[in-house]
Amino acid sequence: MRIAIINGPNLNTLGKREPALYGNTPFEPFLIGLQQQYPQHLITCFQSNDEGAVVTALQQAGDECDAVILNAGAYTHTSLAIADAVRSLGIPVIEVHLTNIFAREQFRHHSYLTPVCKGLIAGLGLDGYRLAVAHLTAKP
Amino acid sequence: MRIAIINGPNLNTLGKREPALYGNTPFEPFLIGLQQQYPQHLITCFQSNDEGAVVTALQQAGDECDAVILNAGAYTHTSLAIADAVRSLGIPVIEVHLTNIFAREQFRHHSYLTPVCKGLIAGLGLDGYRLAVAHLTAKP
Amino acid sequence: MRIAIINGPNLNTLGKREPALYGNTPFEPFLIGLQQQYPQHLITCFQSNDEGAVVTALQQAGDECDAVILNAGAYTHTSLAIADAVRSLGIPVIEVHLTNIFAREQFRHHSYLTPVCKGLIAGLGLDGYRLAVAHLTAKP
Amino acid sequence: MRIAIINGPNLNTLGKREPALYGNTPFEPFLIGLQQQYPQHLITCFQSNDEGAVVTALQQAGDECDAVILNAGAYTHTSLAIADAVRSLGIPVIEVHLTNIFAREQFRHHSYLTPVCKGLIAGLGLDGYRLAVAHLTAKP
Amino acid sequence: MRIAIINGPNLNTLGKREPALYGNTPFEPFLIGLQQQYPQHLITCFQSNDEGAVVTALQQAGDECDAVILNAGAYTHTSLAIADAVRSLGIPVIEVHLTNIFAREQFRHHSYLTPVCKGLIAGLGLDGYRLAVAHLTAKP
Amino acid sequence: MRIAIINGPNLNTLGKREPALYGNTPFEPFLIGLQQQYPQHLITCFQSNDEGAVVTALQQAGDECDAVILNAGAYTHTSLAIADAVRSLGIPVIEVHLTNIFAREQFRHHSYLTPVCKGLIAGLGLDGYRLAVAHLTAKP
Amino acid sequence: MRIAIINGPNLNTLGKREPALYGNTPFEPFLIGLQQQYPQHLITCFQSNDEGAVVTALQQAGDECDAVILNAGAYTHTSLAIADAVRSLGIPVIEVHLTNIFAREQFRHHSYLTPVCKGLIAGLGLDGYRLAVAHLTAKP
Amino acid sequence: MRIAIINGPNLNTLGKREPALYGNTPFEPFLIGLQQQYPQHLITCFQSNDEGAVVTALQQAGDECDAVILNAGAYTHTSLAIADAVRSLGIPVIEVHLTNIFAREQFRHHSYLTPVCKGLIAGLGLDGYRLAVAHLTAKP
Amino acid sequence: MRIAIINGPNLNTLGKREPALYGNTPFEPFLIGLQQQYPQHLITCFQSNDEGAVVTALQQAGDECDAVILNAGAYTHTSLAIADAVRSLGIPVIEVHLTNIFAREQFRHHSYLTPVCKGLIAGLGLDGYRLAVAHLTAKP
Amino acid sequence: MRIAIINGPNLNTLGKREPALYGNTPFEPFLIGLQQQYPQHLITCFQSNDEGAVVTALQQAGDECDAVILNAGAYTHTSLAIADAVRSLGIPVIEVHLTNIFAREQFRHHSYLTPVCKGLIAGLGLDGYRLAVAHLTAKP
Amino acid sequence: MRIAIINGPNLNTLGKREPALYGNTPFEPFLIGLQQQYPQHLITCFQSNDEGAVVTALQQAGDECDAVILNAGAYTHTSLAIADAVRSLGIPVIEVHLTNIFAREQFRHHSYLTPVCKGLIAGLGLDGYRLAVAHLTAKP
Amino acid sequence: MRIAIINGPNLNTLGKREPALYGNTPFEPFLIGLQQQYPQHLITCFQSNDEGAVVTALQQAGDECDAVILNAGAYTHTSLAIADAVRSLGIPVIEVHLTNIFAREQFRHHSYLTPVCKGLIAGLGLDGYRLAVAHLTAKP
Repeated sequence: MRIAIINGPNLNTLGKREPALYGNTPFEPFLIGLQQQYPQHLITCFQSNDEGAVVTALQQAGDECDAVILNAGAYTHTSLAIADAVRSLGIPVIEVHLTNIFAREQFRHHSYLTPVCKGLIAGLGLDGYRLAVAHLTAKP
Repeated sequence: MRIAIINGPNLNTLGKREPALYGNTPFEPFLIGLQQQYPQHLITCFQSNDEGAVVTALQQAGDECDAVILNAGAYTHTSLAIADAVRSLGIPVIEVHLTNIFAREQFRHHSYLTPVCKGLIAGLGLDGYRLAVAHLTAKP
Repeated sequence: MRIAIINGPNLNTLGKREPALYGNTPFEPFLIGLQQQYPQHLITCFQSNDEGAVVTALQQAGDECDAVILNAGAYTHTSLAIADAVRSLGIPVIEVHLTNIFAREQFRHHSYLTPVCKGLIAGLGLDGYRLAVAHLTAKP
Repeated sequence: MRIAIINGPNLNTLGKREPALYGNTPFEPFLIGLQQQYPQHLITCFQSNDEGAVVTALQQAGDECDAVILNAGAYTHTSLAIADAVRSLGIPVIEVHLTNIFAREQFRHHSYLTPVCKGLIAGLGLDGYRLAVAHLTAKP
Repeated sequence: MRIAIINGPNLNTLGKREPALYGNTPFEPFLIGLQQQYPQHLITCFQSNDEGAVVTALQQAGDECDAVILNAGAYTHTSLAIADAVRSLGIPVIEVHLTNIFAREQFRHHSYLTPVCKGLIAGLGLDGYRLAVAHLTAKP
Repeated sequence: MRIAIINGPNLNTLGKREPALYGNTPFEPFLIGLQQQYPQHLITCFQSNDEGAVVTALQQAGDECDAVILNAGAYTHTSLAIADAVRSLGIPVIEVHLTNIFAREQFRHHSYLTPVCKGLIAGLGLDGYRLAVAHLTAKP
Repeated sequence: MRIAIINGPNLNTLGKREPALYGNTPFEPFLIGLQQQYPQHLITCFQSNDEGAVVTALQQAGDECDAVILNAGAYTHTSLAIADAVRSLGIPVIEVHLTNIFAREQFRHHSYLTPVCKGLIAGLGLDGYRLAVAHLTAKP
Repeated sequence: MRIAIINGPNLNTLGKREPALYGNTPFEPFLIGLQQQYPQHLITCFQSNDEGAVVTALQQAGDECDAVILNAGAYTHTSLAIADAVRSLGIPVIEVHLTNIFAREQFRHHSYLTPVCKGLIAGLGLDGYRLAVAHLTAKP
Repeated sequence: MRIAIINGPNLNTLGKREPALYGNTPFEPFLIGLQQQYPQHLITCFQSNDEGAVVTALQQAGDECDAVILNAGAYTHTSLAIADAVRSLGIPVIEVHLTNIFAREQFRHHSYLTPVCKGLIAGLGLDGYRLAVAHLTAKP
Repeated sequence: MRIAIINGPNLNTLGKREPALYGNTPFEPFLIGLQQQYPQHLITCFQSNDEGAVVTALQQAGDECDAVILNAGAYTHTSLAIADAVRSLGIPVIEVHLTNIFAREQFRHHSYLTPVCKGLIAGLGLDGYRLAVAHLTAKP
Repeated sequence: MRIAIINGPNLNTLGKREPALYGNTPFEPFLIGLQQQYPQHLITCFQSNDEGAVVTALQQAGDECDAVILNAGAYTHTSLAIADAVRSLGIPVIEVHLTNIFAREQFRHHSYLTPVCKGLIAGLGLDGYRLAVAHLTAKP
Repeated sequence: MRIAIINGPNLNTLGKREPALYGNTPFEPFLIGLQQQYPQHLITCFQSNDEGAVVTALQQAGDECDAVILNAGAYTHTSLAIADAVRSLGIPVIEVHLTNIFAREQFRHHSYLTPVCKGLIAGLGLDGYRLAVAHLTAKP
């Protein structure tokens, strides 16, 4: 199974900034561990601070992958363009958030993406990505 | 690890009513499978249509268990009493929903419980309970 | 035809309290009259102040009856759990209110139940139950 | 008893347009059946697409009839003028809707008329008119 | 000076219905008294329950009169069509209400017409019309 | 093709009032030019200041025409009755506005009609009617 | 008849500031003219920029006068204290505004005072005070 | 005087959970002290996590007691059923909250119960119950 | 203990105006009785119709007293300046209202002051002041 | 005339994804047809998934073209940056949408762009672009 | 240049109360330093806890000064009277806040004054006053 | 001190477009003047129409500079991604706007950025940048 992890803005600073909130593990080593845990699957990762680049990455994943794990960061709450891209894909998309967005500021409580994703995992840290992979690969 | 699964109203009809929405697997056989998959942990389950009974079950779980997996059904969206009970527990609570509540009616988009839970898994069917157990037991 | 009348909170005090608003006829003698008027049909009645008990009664009615007449009292305006129970029944449910709830306080103007019921009769006093029976039994 | 049925806009196309929603019975034959069922009462009917004509019809009914059954169609949700006319009548007015307006679009959930009517019957099709007559004529 | 008084829906029942609210003087004798008080001015009056007729009357007044006194009744709160007609007139329009609409139901607190009128007189009963005439004719 | 143009309130004063906003061309000569430009199609026009008359005109157009071009003027923003009439027609309806209603007052930003029309052309003056005809007649 | 005119904040600059909006007549000469026009009545005037002073002036007027004409300026839209003072008076209070407050900024459209006054005259300039006096003194 | 103290959900954990917020005194010893302080009055206490049980307890108190002190916990903010029960009692009900609910989360700022109670004491801890008793018993 | 009672606008008319709502006891004799009941404490009282004077009185009480009992009257619902003054004091402030403000008009349901006070007593008439003193002086 | 067509996010997948909604014609062949239909005009097209790129394209069009046809896709509903760019251009901009955005989800009903465009064509599919060209080129 | 600094309620306690929020420098020594830094300009300061006194001070500054620096404290968020006074001045007014009001409670996010001031400086402590002077005096 | 000025969308057209609103000075010469005025500090500038590029520039400034002056243009009102980037920086960020955004359209009154910046300077034109530098460099 080909799974594309797509990360949005500010996730490139993971592990460096605001560790009390987001933890101090960078995404890179976590990803390597995840790939080793699921060697029979192809897990790729794309990150961009750019809304348009996330849209394009989703379009490409729709052509080349079997599933997407999407953490659109702050674009979760503002981007209809990403929501439109998700909706038009023919493959399952699982939304992941490191933090419990519903326990934070009011403006993080609404996601334009969840209604067009298959499901949501929030508040479980980086483990949320692992659970998403576990769900996608267990499905048969 | 002692994990209490607490299910709210109408989840006793799982597998019988509205299978197109909730699937046609009753909770009982799923639970047995889950217990067999995690034999080293004690997974118990409580269901009630009654808001007060869910509050009491949470209070007891706080005394007797190490973690709670909570699917409060429709009380998710209306019960501050359950939210208060969750908040006062000293153990992690993970909220699970079978369906993607954010892709349904407007009044299901808000949960009083998520802000006081550790995290949320929604839209992944019964597998959401398994992922919650996987997360709780993997945490060391 | 088996018709279950299900009454919610505070309807057990009908005839005793606030007669200017709800009339001074208790439900019991009215029900007897109604049963006598429709001897060929089985009309039963359940009342509870408890939201969960109303949910359970609806589930049972779904198994044992052909139609429900529901006056959920104040739960009309607050209970998604009852609404979920109504929606999953395979039989017609008619909502009845003794008073014209739209002529009273703002918070009584919205019902979570009406959208999942077949229809609504409000403001016609106890006669609303009779009209509901008349409608259900006339449907040849 | 003289009962005036007053129908609002687009009800003249009943039976012809959108039968899936409103049924395929025109109002005329239904009315004849109703009149035959209640021969001791004078049941008349007025229909107009015009808000002002409905106001005037209500004023006249207040002078000449004992009760009104009002289905103001879409004016239900927009007309304060009709509501004012209803409020100033000295006779009971029962609001009827063919469909369950609370199960339809958001803008049909609010009625300016219900607070000034005696009661409401909605969602029971043309039978709602019959129940209204049954209620009005039974009131001894 | 030619002054057109234009009255909207239900004002034809003035003096007959709800006298506690609107007084028990019909408009006709009041108008005659007003005309006698201002013999050097031409004061005419038009009443209709019909929104479109009020629009047309305003258009005609714009062609034939020097000023309008407008009591649009309930259309005050719902009619953009009348507001558009008022706005396009080249002559002063004074809005009058018999009752203090701001001391009544919430939906009477907003007028689509006031922003496009010159001014508003409310709550002073039929005397409001006299004051409007006094203002219009005093404007030397 | 038979195309009915239906114009709502205050459009009878086009060219005379508020020319800075609506232009100084009356509708009549424009319509003649349009008919000459499309001689193979039957283009008729109806105008009324009356909401009910617009409803009735739409019902008739549904019986006699192949398409409707609708500029309901101010009723655009207030009339559910017209929206209901549009929805029940079996022929395409294109909404036209002379001005850019979204660049004007807040209350003109919402149209009850657009959701039940095929499409909307706004802000292009009388040319909007021509484009609507161009679209309807080009469709094969 | 003893009539107290009570003017609120910034009305002491009338005639000097923003004449395009409020005119260039100071209040003093207007008041003298008004007193001369109604010699048989005692018309006094009080102005303050201070909310508390307006409250106190109203209390005193309640003890010493037969009626109040109140233009509370910007306190109209923010002062519950003045509204409470008005409500507890046993004499009629007429609210006057020089400008048409409903044709100005949104926050001027709501008055806390109108619901507790007898009536409102707005948009007619200083003449509004004269009309208020005319109404109060004509009330035989 | 017979005074019923009725406590709602999660108040059974008082003194054990969240002591920083609610203090570390259980209700039982406080109640004993209160009863000793007012030996001439009969002070009883009922607690339940169940909304329906609180409704029933209120109905019983209405039959058997002279006054009620009600701390409905989280049901304060969600229960119309309890509000209806309070409203129909013929005896005074005083609402008490341990904490200053207006200094906490937004959803605790609104109480369905206060409008139907005689008064409210909030933020004064367990002493609020004593003050309520002091008020009720002092009412000579 | 030095306790400052600070009363806001219109409380100087207590006992004279609207006795049905506020009772017919003036504040002065009540205060004397209260001082006699608590001779070992220094209870002073300040009243003003002026928002700024209430702010200043609070600042002085912060310098000279041990606690404040504050009934800010209508400023309760509109004054952030008073709320800021309360918040910056280092001594307990208890808010008191004679009436049950939550059973009155909507705009009295919100208090800017309660969130920065220690607690609230409302609806118990002048006895509320006594209970506040009882609480403050009992606190050892 | 130089006309720039600027298309926003996800319009690069036109014809491939969600054909039931957007049709199965890619933009490229349609554009070629359009250019052939208007050989005397220079019609260019730019598409980007990137909000900033759309802003830049608009700035360039302002320097190099005579008019813009803008379909900003999902940015229509979220981008003030694009609205600012449109507003500062000195040339007419016509907004086009393939679908009737007002018949879709609530969040598509508001456009930040329409108020700063000349006009809007929505719901007429790719033909909307042709009509926009027809309008722009016909204008002299 | 004559510059009037006008400070609103509770700013007289600057340096004494809540130093964590507002700093521990009183305004007096800061003002002296500022006057010494700009010896060629006349910088005066007025403070009041009274809304009306701030209005009057603004009116006087309009007569006697060339510019105003206004920190209206809590009146910023509630006073239309002050806003009206600002708007009618013919000289520039710069609004200053010591704290970043947008990072504090919701009710501090809206200012009635900013729309009628020239500009706003917030969150930079007492230095905001210096920057305002720097801007005003640098303007030639 | 190293200060990064970061400008958002459409600020590259400063001086060319809408000079009545934004002035006719391009940013480049102003920046040179500013650098000359503060030779001992390193002031750099970055502009982009792209939200993602602004995020990335902020991240870099966090690594390389001591402070940021941010004018995010229209992204001020829509970009949570930029707000997140600001919040995670460890250096002071001052928000600057050329115009008084609170005196313009409603949607410009809210900034996602101000709550996470140190302070805000708005409405003082290009001088706002100078004041920000003056504040940052004066701080020791």
